[in-house]
Amino acid sequence: MELIRVSWCLVSQMGVRIASAASTKYDKQPASSSRELFSEAAREAFDETSITPADLDAVYVGNFMGDLIEDQGHMGALLADYVGARDAASVRMESACASGGATFRQAVLAVEAGAADVVLAGGVEQMSTADIEHVTDALANAADNVFENEQGLTFPGIYALMARRYMHEFDATREELAAVSVKNHNNAVDNPLAQFQRELTVEEVVESKSIATPLALYDACPVSDGASAVIVVSDEFAADHGLDMSVTVLGTGQSSDALALQDRAAITRTPAAERAARAAYRDAGITADDVDVAEVHDCFTIAEILALEALGFYEQGEGVRGAVDGETSLEGEIPVNPSGGLLGKGHPVGVTGIGQLVELTKQLQGRHPNQIPDADVALAHNVGGSGASTTVTVLGGE
Amino acid sequence: MELIRVSWCLVSQMGVRIASAASTKYDKQPASSSRELFSEAAREAFDETSITPADLDAVYVGNFMGDLIEDQGHMGALLADYVGARDAASVRMESACASGGATFRQAVLAVEAGAADVVLAGGVEQMSTADIEHVTDALANAADNVFENEQGLTFPGIYALMARRYMHEFDATREELAAVSVKNHNNAVDNPLAQFQRELTVEEVVESKSIATPLALYDACPVSDGASAVIVVSDEFAADHGLDMSVTVLGTGQSSDALALQDRAAITRTPAAERAARAAYRDAGITADDVDVAEVHDCFTIAEILALEALGFYEQGEGVRGAVDGETSLEGEIPVNPSGGLLGKGHPVGVTGIGQLVELTKQLQGRHPNQIPDADVALAHNVGGSGASTTVTVLGGE
Repeated sequence: MELIRVSWCLVSQMGVRIASAASTKYDKQPASSSRELFSEAAREAFDETSITPADLDAVYVGNFMGDLIEDQGHMGALLADYVGARDAASVRMESACASGGATFRQAVLAVEAGAADVVLAGGVEQMSTADIEHVTDALANAADNVFENEQGLTFPGIYALMARRYMHEFDATREELAAVSVKNHNNAVDNPLAQFQRELTVEEVVESKSIATPLALYDACPVSDGASAVIVVSDEFAADHGLDMSVTVLGTGQSSDALALQDRAAITRTPAAERAARAAYRDAGITADDVDVAEVHDCFTIAEILALEALGFYEQGEGVRGAVDGETSLEGEIPVNPSGGLLGKGHPVGVTGIGQLVELTKQLQGRHPNQIPDADVALAHNVGGSGASTTVTVLGGE
Repeated sequence: MELIRVSWCLVSQMGVRIASAASTKYDKQPASSSRELFSEAAREAFDETSITPADLDAVYVGNFMGDLIEDQGHMGALLADYVGARDAASVRMESACASGGATFRQAVLAVEAGAADVVLAGGVEQMSTADIEHVTDALANAADNVFENEQGLTFPGIYALMARRYMHEFDATREELAAVSVKNHNNAVDNPLAQFQRELTVEEVVESKSIATPLALYDACPVSDGASAVIVVSDEFAADHGLDMSVTVLGTGQSSDALALQDRAAITRTPAAERAARAAYRDAGITADDVDVAEVHDCFTIAEILALEALGFYEQGEGVRGAVDGETSLEGEIPVNPSGGLLGKGHPVGVTGIGQLVELTKQLQGRHPNQIPDADVALAHNVGGSGASTTVTVLGGE
């Protein structure tokens, strides 16, 4: 009898909503510290709602390299104080470039567990105050230090191996990879939060400086500084306080994989993303076909193609069609990265997963600069390393 | 009607148990990497239960300085793989020296939310491979880099300020502080997991090398390497799988404070701990009087005294009595740090909060080397920085 009652509880688990969401611009902002960037994003999120810092039960912070770049760890408590919620529960969460997505998911779980009614889930990264070699070293912390980093394999090299193998297995061309970057840069032009606002052509991508064959500079996301903040609330709190009820967390999923590429069964699939997507779809009670718009983790052009396949939008080997045939464009069947993605909008690493949710919240509220008409179901896909951590979040609109 | 049903759900929230708990020895172990230490603790935890790595829904890892010492971030996914749970959800959590306690609490929330049935909550720290200046720099990341670290204030200095002020306000003596270290070192003698196994006298503490007046070397915890692992399960999973049902998570609390000492209203109180304790007592439905045994965060002697007061065991200014009068000794009214505490057992920073729970699990199972008779309610208190993050956990026995 007890078990039956608990099962019923699971089904009617407390709903979770996004009450407010905001981002700084993503850009090189070397004059702004993490505490300044985070405060700016949080302040803007508070400006859009009647929630005040005193309402926050918890502040969860996604950050990857504050200790390496700014000599500042312990960012949970530090930034809780800076947003005016010194007495909230606070934690910094780190899953490399999936830190933001992981942070958001734990915030949702805290509300679902009944331990919090209001959680600020934010992310912050300051990367540009360090020289580029230092940033490259810091990013390499996301890879297996023993079997990759110390052997000289950096992230452009890791993704180049994946791209090369994908091209070999599925007869994809260099130009087809480049089409992803063209699409996402073109989307970024109209996003005022994006780091780049310049259209690109396939030729420009292919002819940009080679960084790890077959990938060139414009196949890669830039170094970015920025912060994003999402305020997550329980359904009850939202209803009791007359808050915006337009965006619901329908489902979340999270999974992992071996850190080192050499330990994976295949390097042209991302099983952690497949598992996270299955879990999120199941949690949301939907299928891939129900998704109206997606923000996916395109740190390199090949990464978006692998994402499209892992999420079930395409069969394996078919993901290249998305950008080439226009199916993932703003007018396509499944618009992907209308924000500009990591390639065009930028990639402050520990922030990105939260930033995707800011973009999708605007989509579901009908106020995105690249608005997808009638977007009701939105998906975010956030990856750490070369696929060892992945979170998938499904949001629903009214 | 819906609200009433949800409230009822809260009341009958899923129970959470500790199915298994294990630690490596805490010591300088420079030949062992974080992945080796963590695997050792996890393997031992699995050895004590029928749970296998395949059962794990999530692996949460507390770690403070892996990226600074070993060039290794992304420890959640890395260590999930190393314990044989490559496909689990994984995150590294960091709240400085409260990383372990924060990790455990999020694991409990994940189970309470129904998102996981089995979570490995572990901690790992490798500190001794770096030279001591590097470790001191890394530890300073837990303080406010702008207003403390860059001004030359290190943690011994921070706690010395707190100790000096406490002695001034409450007429405490140098020898009374030292009594905490004597008690905890003497407790450590019988704990095979402890770094130190040598009794100390008050004179030895007072006459040890001065590190920041009034604190001397034996007022401070050592640099330690180690790992601890706790397997957290839902009541239903435990019952369905015939697991050890002896240790229940009765309540958790977590709160924060300003990172910098200068921003606090007083430096002889730790309000984050007071709030975390109140929340944990409320969650558990107990008061401070119900606690039979406690492991508290005695990174310096003064820290244990402040903990005793914040937890409600003593009024402000009275906490010094605990060790001096023997009330916190193994035979006292409220035994504190029977493990040896951070002073005697060691302090691998991101691990400590998990290690406390390993010690208390053994107390509640009646198999601790310094067993407290009839221990039914056990409390852990884990602090980050000089009090900016605190978690309090209350465990119950049969």
